[in-house]
Amino acid sequence: MSTHPLEEILHPRSIAVVGASASGRGSGFITPFKELGFKGEVYPVNPKYDEILGMKAYARVTDIPGPVDYVISSIPATAILGLIDDCVKKGVKAVHLFTARFSETGRKDATELEQELLRRARQGGVRLIGPNCLGVYYPDMGIGFHEGMPKESGQTALISQSGQVVGEIVDLAAQSGVRFSKAISYGNALDFNECDYLEYFTQDEETDIILMYVEGVREGKRFADSLRKAAAVKPVVILKGGRGDAGSRATASHTASMAGSQRLWDSVVNQAGAISVSDIEELVDVAVGLYFTPVITGRRTAVAGGSGGRSVQAADQCEEAGLDIIPLPEDIREELKAQGDPVWDWIGNPADSSISMGDRDSTKGIMQLMAGHPEFDLLIIFMRGPRRPASEPFSMDRYMQRYRLREITGKPIIMIFGDSSRDAGKEAEWYTDITARIKERLVEDRLSFYPGVGRAARAISKIIGYNERKRI
Amino acid sequence: MSTHPLEEILHPRSIAVVGASASGRGSGFITPFKELGFKGEVYPVNPKYDEILGMKAYARVTDIPGPVDYVISSIPATAILGLIDDCVKKGVKAVHLFTARFSETGRKDATELEQELLRRARQGGVRLIGPNCLGVYYPDMGIGFHEGMPKESGQTALISQSGQVVGEIVDLAAQSGVRFSKAISYGNALDFNECDYLEYFTQDEETDIILMYVEGVREGKRFADSLRKAAAVKPVVILKGGRGDAGSRATASHTASMAGSQRLWDSVVNQAGAISVSDIEELVDVAVGLYFTPVITGRRTAVAGGSGGRSVQAADQCEEAGLDIIPLPEDIREELKAQGDPVWDWIGNPADSSISMGDRDSTKGIMQLMAGHPEFDLLIIFMRGPRRPASEPFSMDRYMQRYRLREITGKPIIMIFGDSSRDAGKEAEWYTDITARIKERLVEDRLSFYPGVGRAARAISKIIGYNERKRI
Repeated sequence: MSTHPLEEILHPRSIAVVGASASGRGSGFITPFKELGFKGEVYPVNPKYDEILGMKAYARVTDIPGPVDYVISSIPATAILGLIDDCVKKGVKAVHLFTARFSETGRKDATELEQELLRRARQGGVRLIGPNCLGVYYPDMGIGFHEGMPKESGQTALISQSGQVVGEIVDLAAQSGVRFSKAISYGNALDFNECDYLEYFTQDEETDIILMYVEGVREGKRFADSLRKAAAVKPVVILKGGRGDAGSRATASHTASMAGSQRLWDSVVNQAGAISVSDIEELVDVAVGLYFTPVITGRRTAVAGGSGGRSVQAADQCEEAGLDIIPLPEDIREELKAQGDPVWDWIGNPADSSISMGDRDSTKGIMQLMAGHPEFDLLIIFMRGPRRPASEPFSMDRYMQRYRLREITGKPIIMIFGDSSRDAGKEAEWYTDITARIKERLVEDRLSFYPGVGRAARAISKIIGYNERKRI
Repeated sequence: MSTHPLEEILHPRSIAVVGASASGRGSGFITPFKELGFKGEVYPVNPKYDEILGMKAYARVTDIPGPVDYVISSIPATAILGLIDDCVKKGVKAVHLFTARFSETGRKDATELEQELLRRARQGGVRLIGPNCLGVYYPDMGIGFHEGMPKESGQTALISQSGQVVGEIVDLAAQSGVRFSKAISYGNALDFNECDYLEYFTQDEETDIILMYVEGVREGKRFADSLRKAAAVKPVVILKGGRGDAGSRATASHTASMAGSQRLWDSVVNQAGAISVSDIEELVDVAVGLYFTPVITGRRTAVAGGSGGRSVQAADQCEEAGLDIIPLPEDIREELKAQGDPVWDWIGNPADSSISMGDRDSTKGIMQLMAGHPEFDLLIIFMRGPRRPASEPFSMDRYMQRYRLREITGKPIIMIFGDSSRDAGKEAEWYTDITARIKERLVEDRLSFYPGVGRAARAISKIIGYNERKRI
């Protein structure tokens, strides 16, 4: 059991939601407890109601009969000092402040109020998450911050200064099967800051991968140190918000962050051995690779299954991302010849599926040879769009059969599976359904998949780079 | 009426499809005539059938009673010389060869067969499109090459060495409302090559924008010259396949193209004043901007409607793409103050919608002020995900009301409209339907829209760069 102060805070026996209501944002902190199955007590607090969503409501935190470990504050900033005083009286351990309009407004009185809030919390022994943030998503504890967050947990942690970014990353990642141990949005970082969260997840046994979205760093030297220690034990993927002048101005009004020098940032992240990404899409792409395909030992890449122009562009995109598309090894060519493959002299790497003219066995044959060959470190496969069979029902097993290469060879396999509406034609509804089921199956089989080679290659190349730095 | 030889070829009175069949690829060249409404005669040719898809089938081209202007060849390469001889006898003007397995195989006999094919065609006065390509999509003439191609035409032309790329671009572009005058896939470029097509579209009155996917250039000097002349009269957007070593090997086996030096290519494209892109997605993104928002006079960009982290990242992505996110002009701030906007001192550019705390009127107010302000050259707007109203039906007019800024100000407006599954929640089906309708409406209103700011900013910046070069 961890001794980090966040460990106890993230395992509350009871939670009060102050400013709760039956609908809107005030209910958004209540419904996840039911959806995700929080096992402790939940107390809605709002003097305007006797009951909220079927639960007895209290006028003040101090009116609650039992102990309260954790408070979510969804009330206006003007009422915050009274709440903190009540929390001190009640012996609350931590308050998550969804409450905003503090220093991020740039206003003097709001900044002073924030400092007074911190002073009273410190004096009273109450820790703070936020303010100006959505707080904690912890599926195994049954805590979330909006309806419909995934119930399933996984080994990825997310630390994000922005709440909107947490929602976006959790949703996007879920579409590729990446699940979270915990995700924390921490806003203005008044008490706990990015260093605390990073140090917590470094030693958190439920977490194997750390994702971060940071707008500004409160303690530069400590952050560099924490990041280095974190990246030494698990991969840390970082997206920085506020890289240029306009972005820096935006971070100030969003989370009161000083963005700092981009050059200094880059050098801190590189020296720490963390993985730097430039947008949310890339953050998720790298997370997908780390989640399902963490061990890739080299850059020699085989590509198969794409037709014509798509194969040509796959070669370009892989090379531009730093992967090495080596020529087809001679012994594979000889083997194809021995098997009587009519295109043995013509096919190459990428193996263009239009060359084998729709001969499925030929394409499958070369994929298997590539997957089994020691000169290739990984294999990128374009999956064919599914087609509705004319007479029998669609067989998922038969469809997936040709892609079951990893079990034979143990080689890292990256799948390219897009949504091609053209493949659907008149079967759009059937296609949408089957596409969703294929993605579920890929997740079940723990295969990384991407909508295009460019994104796959850039993400995979970053993971290989991380592994290379770790080996040095 | 154009005097370019392709003009007559692209307006055939009658077409024979050799190797036609009732299903599969052999039918793929027949069905589009019906779907798109070709007005001339269509003759299926296949000695194995008396009738194909309800039309009388002929054993040979020479058996067809009336004149035949255009022939589509879908037979194996081994039978191609006999067909060409028949076409010469019949007085056919042009043959499109879907037929492949010529020089792209790298085999000596196949390359010699290709040369013999060219010799006989030239001697007999028959022009060739291809071989190894999908040929022509010309919606206004009723010509296409697979089922379900858009019936509506527009002012964009596409020249692509790869047929698969044509299909992908036409489909992707259609999703954003970009329509085509003609699209030609030309494969091995044995007779007509990229220069011919480029010169044709330069003078084609149905075409305002030219998109190109090129794997290799047959006549370097002529190409540089044609490209310069084309880009002087209409924007030309070019994607090069085979930029690196592996890509070059792939172009050889795909369309028998020598990819050539990337540095030379870059200098030819830049000197010509064409717009260079690095993948299909970017090609389509630039096409969308050119189609709906061709005139943008400067880089000073206003961004509005995104919340929190998304606004911060929008600022970063715009700046990194070369757009200029200037601070909010003081007189807009003063105007907001005069209007009693409670966040006049806090809001900035990007205008973060979470600052106005969901106050729709406030967000709309600042968008209008930004759109009307002379210091901004363009406006990028995040559209809100639609929500199903509780009691009344969804009103598209009301939803679109707040985005009707261009009609007031004439300023270029770029919309960001993604598919956010999270916005859907329990209303997924309703959401999918409404999302599709909103996109249709954006197209109707001739507004450019993109799924994210990064893609929008990079595309728009390229268009501005093109306009800047043209002005010099």
